[in-house]
Amino acid sequence: MDNLEIASMKASDINHVLRHIYETLIENQDGALADYIPELAKVDPDSFGISIATNNGKLFSIGDVETTFTIQSISKAINYCIALELLGKKAVLERVGVEPSGDRFNAIEFDPRTLRPYNPMVNAGAITIAALLYDHLGSEAYEYILDRFSLAAGRQLKLDEGVYRSELSTGHRNRAIGHLLLSTQAIEEPVDAALDLYFRQCSISVSATDLAVIGATLANLGQNPVTGKQVFDMTAVRNTLSVMFTCGMYDYSGNWAHDVGLPAKSGVGGGILGIVNRQLGIGTFSPRLDFNGNSVRGIASFKILSDEFGLHTFDPTNRGSGLVAHFFDH
Amino acid sequence: MDNLEIASMKASDINHVLRHIYETLIENQDGALADYIPELAKVDPDSFGISIATNNGKLFSIGDVETTFTIQSISKAINYCIALELLGKKAVLERVGVEPSGDRFNAIEFDPRTLRPYNPMVNAGAITIAALLYDHLGSEAYEYILDRFSLAAGRQLKLDEGVYRSELSTGHRNRAIGHLLLSTQAIEEPVDAALDLYFRQCSISVSATDLAVIGATLANLGQNPVTGKQVFDMTAVRNTLSVMFTCGMYDYSGNWAHDVGLPAKSGVGGGILGIVNRQLGIGTFSPRLDFNGNSVRGIASFKILSDEFGLHTFDPTNRGSGLVAHFFDH
Amino acid sequence: MDNLEIASMKASDINHVLRHIYETLIENQDGALADYIPELAKVDPDSFGISIATNNGKLFSIGDVETTFTIQSISKAINYCIALELLGKKAVLERVGVEPSGDRFNAIEFDPRTLRPYNPMVNAGAITIAALLYDHLGSEAYEYILDRFSLAAGRQLKLDEGVYRSELSTGHRNRAIGHLLLSTQAIEEPVDAALDLYFRQCSISVSATDLAVIGATLANLGQNPVTGKQVFDMTAVRNTLSVMFTCGMYDYSGNWAHDVGLPAKSGVGGGILGIVNRQLGIGTFSPRLDFNGNSVRGIASFKILSDEFGLHTFDPTNRGSGLVAHFFDH
Amino acid sequence: MDNLEIASMKASDINHVLRHIYETLIENQDGALADYIPELAKVDPDSFGISIATNNGKLFSIGDVETTFTIQSISKAINYCIALELLGKKAVLERVGVEPSGDRFNAIEFDPRTLRPYNPMVNAGAITIAALLYDHLGSEAYEYILDRFSLAAGRQLKLDEGVYRSELSTGHRNRAIGHLLLSTQAIEEPVDAALDLYFRQCSISVSATDLAVIGATLANLGQNPVTGKQVFDMTAVRNTLSVMFTCGMYDYSGNWAHDVGLPAKSGVGGGILGIVNRQLGIGTFSPRLDFNGNSVRGIASFKILSDEFGLHTFDPTNRGSGLVAHFFDH
Repeated sequence: MDNLEIASMKASDINHVLRHIYETLIENQDGALADYIPELAKVDPDSFGISIATNNGKLFSIGDVETTFTIQSISKAINYCIALELLGKKAVLERVGVEPSGDRFNAIEFDPRTLRPYNPMVNAGAITIAALLYDHLGSEAYEYILDRFSLAAGRQLKLDEGVYRSELSTGHRNRAIGHLLLSTQAIEEPVDAALDLYFRQCSISVSATDLAVIGATLANLGQNPVTGKQVFDMTAVRNTLSVMFTCGMYDYSGNWAHDVGLPAKSGVGGGILGIVNRQLGIGTFSPRLDFNGNSVRGIASFKILSDEFGLHTFDPTNRGSGLVAHFFDH
Repeated sequence: MDNLEIASMKASDINHVLRHIYETLIENQDGALADYIPELAKVDPDSFGISIATNNGKLFSIGDVETTFTIQSISKAINYCIALELLGKKAVLERVGVEPSGDRFNAIEFDPRTLRPYNPMVNAGAITIAALLYDHLGSEAYEYILDRFSLAAGRQLKLDEGVYRSELSTGHRNRAIGHLLLSTQAIEEPVDAALDLYFRQCSISVSATDLAVIGATLANLGQNPVTGKQVFDMTAVRNTLSVMFTCGMYDYSGNWAHDVGLPAKSGVGGGILGIVNRQLGIGTFSPRLDFNGNSVRGIASFKILSDEFGLHTFDPTNRGSGLVAHFFDH
Repeated sequence: MDNLEIASMKASDINHVLRHIYETLIENQDGALADYIPELAKVDPDSFGISIATNNGKLFSIGDVETTFTIQSISKAINYCIALELLGKKAVLERVGVEPSGDRFNAIEFDPRTLRPYNPMVNAGAITIAALLYDHLGSEAYEYILDRFSLAAGRQLKLDEGVYRSELSTGHRNRAIGHLLLSTQAIEEPVDAALDLYFRQCSISVSATDLAVIGATLANLGQNPVTGKQVFDMTAVRNTLSVMFTCGMYDYSGNWAHDVGLPAKSGVGGGILGIVNRQLGIGTFSPRLDFNGNSVRGIASFKILSDEFGLHTFDPTNRGSGLVAHFFDH
Repeated sequence: MDNLEIASMKASDINHVLRHIYETLIENQDGALADYIPELAKVDPDSFGISIATNNGKLFSIGDVETTFTIQSISKAINYCIALELLGKKAVLERVGVEPSGDRFNAIEFDPRTLRPYNPMVNAGAITIAALLYDHLGSEAYEYILDRFSLAAGRQLKLDEGVYRSELSTGHRNRAIGHLLLSTQAIEEPVDAALDLYFRQCSISVSATDLAVIGATLANLGQNPVTGKQVFDMTAVRNTLSVMFTCGMYDYSGNWAHDVGLPAKSGVGGGILGIVNRQLGIGTFSPRLDFNGNSVRGIASFKILSDEFGLHTFDPTNRGSGLVAHFFDH
């Protein structure tokens, strides 16, 4: 498909592009389900949905966009945003860096210069954020963050109990990271409570449409464009999008920044959340993962969307910066 | 100083901001000159200049903006852009990755998954790019890239012979990297010619104003806004800016993306080149470096500029996206 | 002092050498007490004792040889020996390697080829051994190993409750290692019981003389030369001495093998246990540690003893192999 | 086969054991030829020979013990011994450590505490030794070390020109290591001369019997027991055997120390040199290598020999210490 002439497009054209992507990629069965816990392998591997929410509250979607799955690592980005707001950037950055690491997401390595986790998108950093939130919010921490996630999605989200129980009983590596964080004083006791919060945040059930609306909320100065409610602090959003851009897609983050060029975060549940600043939130769901732990069809969907609509942050024509919103909004 | 009310600003205000930055930072003598080769330690440590070029060719500057220094690692970004254009993205990415590494710029580590250098901003990646350019251009390679650098700067640049000779005779670590790249077949013989090109590209003399104009050329669809000449391929620019954003500031890249939020590249000669896409090129020069090898005053200058004018790529209000150019242009 | 003419020496000469070592080194106040737990910093930093036990049960000693301190990592060697005996070499080596690692003793790295701890002398390997022993012996495990340690020392040893409680409450890094071992299935639950055994084994109180007698037991085919009781399996002793030789002195192991040339194990409590196969056990105690965690005066004492009596395993004249025992025995 | 009753054995029994080993292992075709240079893959993969030289000059052997092959890394041990003698331990240890590394033999990592190569058995350390020897001996260096190797073998050895040329033209990784050593000032120019010496020393042709006699020379206070000539300095031998014990068998060194328990060095040409201090030199040749780069049949041969004759350095009964020599000598 040639690049679209965007200026003359209509909403019907958007749906046409989404259909094209869906039909092209539904055949692609590459990748495998995450199976480190049995619960994750229970999803329908063929599920596939793409949802787009504009910053004036319109939705475009195709496929299994209401099917729920666990949010997993996508929660790391949202919690980082909440932590910046509640604790301030200075307090957060004393405990977690913002440098890409070059290591696997579950690496048990800290930045040797600071003994802090490299960034809040690797497990060590996300567990540190969970510990900071627990320290600040106490035993209400999980309810609090679930409320914020729900506000961003525009509907009441809930825990996938099966996945949560499974993570709780098998998350030995994350427990190891928690105790290591204690040993370097990056976090404080009670480590079990911090880990419980982390396991819970990862086990929240969402749909592709939820991700799209959460993304649109981040794209829209932190205000949910569907409900009109203010959810996130604007300054915290800026820093969150930066970290998503540099570190959001595991060991593929640099390639993603290079080729897709959008702040995004993936989870091993099969979801990807992407943001076109001030314009769109995009959510995809397809549970087969590549070697890096990213959804195969999700990445392919974003690549086409970015190319078709000029969404790349450093697109030289900046096609996406004004035209897209205009286009999606009519 | 409070954030400026941009809509009502005039060019005189820009000069006011530049003066404010200059006067604030001229007192800062933190950091130390690069001294791994004696030639680099010969510069005046107190030099300090900031230059801004708009994408319609206007210049704003303060301080030592005509003082020349060696471009050093900033050349890596420009050569990556040229290589993408000449050889195509596919051929380049077969030899060099685009992932941040978490390692020092002169690390002798390759991505264990691919045995390729992590990205073109670390020495191993830049030497690979030099080898690809030499392989493509032959013995004219240096003249060719010097011409392209000169076109981007809008004036004829030249080699700092003293620094070049010094690099040539002492660059043992880079020679080691070159031979290691041969051993993994990331590059091919003649390795000495590739290294010579690399040492030359790093020894090109530029001023802060040259960097600003080169930046404006990258910001302006690859066309030099002062001379009107087309210098870089648009698509190559997009990918170059992405890599600068994620990997351009050595081990500080993530922090830079987080706090300044602009594609940029620093060099141990004391320069920093930053880009506000479609709007501005910014060049700073101050030779005292921090632990990461970045200019101390350069980083501080960019932080203030980014905050004052809302230049951060993920600024939620996107203040910078339209207002700045408008403002700088009047 | 020139090398002694051993053939003509008498026991009085041994005492003369010990006195010489003691007087030379008592002035040396280099190093610092281990202080990662407050209890360890409570010892008298000036304590210094050297004890030698021959394989026919004679003792030579000087200084604070009855002062007790916690055995710490020296317990790793003894427990490895016990595990080999109880479980067999095959079962043990399936879980722990025997390769030197080049990493710090408390490194959180496993051998990348096997995902097993590098060797039983690093914490990860020792915790694995503790888990294997707990798995085999159940809740009686600690009593069992305390009995074996006591048999080797020839007197009833006991726990230093203060140090044990302190380790228990602050051993976050070791807990991290325990959970990581669970995650790679190097060990099985209950990890807390294995860690408790590990913390207890490290907190057993011993004196320099205890170490000397334990060493003589290992040197004497596993039979305590003072009590005449058989304590260790001969074949297990052989493998234990090998691992002590290659990995026993933390990151100084290679230098120790090179310069002292004896199987040995040190602990951060300030003890060093050394063995001259079939001849002697040597115990030293002095709590000031060097950067590697080894007793400063302990290392210096062993260097002089090795040089004076030709104890180096690869001494070309093999002076030590027959003469020493002869000499010490008269 | 049960362990032999050594006291009653005769030389005919030795030959019986060698025949047993040969017949058992000749069927084993596991492993693969080294093929990083084409020349190395030209040997007959089925070759197999074992040779034993006693420290009073007797030889016992079976199989292809006169077939020649390149000495490769075994030369590292001999050159370390020569360097200690010529330059003194202090000067050598300023440039090369003696710690096992846990890394591959061709790793491009230095000890982070010292920036020196970990030990003289990894390539970086061996190239440093070659540079020290070149610095000391000048352009005669190769002739000098060839003479020393020949004296130790008891016959004039010579270069395998084909292998040497092949190493010279393809040794990019070793060249990289050489330049890296320059950059850390572990060595000085001319690096090409040092590398040439290193490539030559590795390309010296030897047989299994040569290795046995070299080994017996090391075992016999540095005196060749066949020719009666003094070849190595006794003190240097002690330290060389120590490093062979801890670092001689690549990444299998710890396992070798544990199970075989002899100072040894292997080469990718298929040879293994082992030493029973003051008693025997043992040379094996079989070119199929395991994953670690060690001869498969060579390791198996040494395991049987060590078990049968109690040669393990830490054999508790010390069976090997006196009986073997006695036995082999009658």
